[in-house]
Amino acid sequence: MTRRLLLLLTVLALGRLAHAGDPPQVEYPAGFRQWAHVKSMVIYSDKHPLFGPFSGFHSVYVNPKGLPAMTKGGSFPDGSVLVFDLLEAREENGAYAEGSRKLLAVMVKDRQRYKPTGGWGFEAFKGDSRTERTVTDAAGQCFGCHQPQKANDFVFSGFHP
Amino acid sequence: MTRRLLLLLTVLALGRLAHAGDPPQVEYPAGFRQWAHVKSMVIYSDKHPLFGPFSGFHSVYVNPKGLPAMTKGGSFPDGSVLVFDLLEAREENGAYAEGSRKLLAVMVKDRQRYKPTGGWGFEAFKGDSRTERTVTDAAGQCFGCHQPQKANDFVFSGFHP
Repeated sequence: MTRRLLLLLTVLALGRLAHAGDPPQVEYPAGFRQWAHVKSMVIYSDKHPLFGPFSGFHSVYVNPKGLPAMTKGGSFPDGSVLVFDLLEAREENGAYAEGSRKLLAVMVKDRQRYKPTGGWGFEAFKGDSRTERTVTDAAGQCFGCHQPQKANDFVFSGFHP
Repeated sequence: MTRRLLLLLTVLALGRLAHAGDPPQVEYPAGFRQWAHVKSMVIYSDKHPLFGPFSGFHSVYVNPKGLPAMTKGGSFPDGSVLVFDLLEAREENGAYAEGSRKLLAVMVKDRQRYKPTGGWGFEAFKGDSRTERTVTDAAGQCFGCHQPQKANDFVFSGFHP
């Protein structure tokens, strides 16, 4: 075995050890603003139970892989991605308009990789950042709320024609 | 000239006369719910100047042809289509959610056909209907309000990344 190969194997082994047991990272969903729009909603008052984490103007998007399940029902195939895009809600003149981005939450379907959380990987990115991740415990921070939606493959949003 | 041909030419001539001067009809934008989503907004109070015609939860969509102009600026090429999808705004529990469709307004770019209205054809369809058209005077009902947006090719909506 050459020295170079040994070095490579060592680096790879250390890399694996460092992340042993961690689910693989969910990628930033580049290009999601051109995916299909599922729904939008404005949460504007603390009378709403999700005002704490999700106050503002949100829209949900689905990638082409997940679109058939979203529009026709059934479970989402591996590779499906859902995005929850949360913007500030700017109140002006009797209307709510979209403001700057508060966070971008992502669900990625991979039955094998994300088995403990219903086959979905969860992540959230702060504001417009593509690197500042905010989910440290997907089961506790995300899947706990999604779990009751099991009959709908753990997804809350529905698509209107 | 055969009788059959004569009859055909007469029918065609009468057809042309009946619609002489009418701009061509704007087609229903089939499949628009899978086009790119430009923006959403909720107009919830009569304090807003557009509450009369457009109260509710609206989203704007652009077809693939118009997407580059929408995201990068510049004028829209012929064949660009914009959709203004107006739904009821359901107020519940401190949030505004999307309800049933009130109307679907459409702008189609064709510099030649729609010259008198900035190169845009305008139409609106009632509720979920694909045939009940509500625009009888595009200049008066639509273009009058869009005209001040000339610098933006008569379009109000802007795309956020």
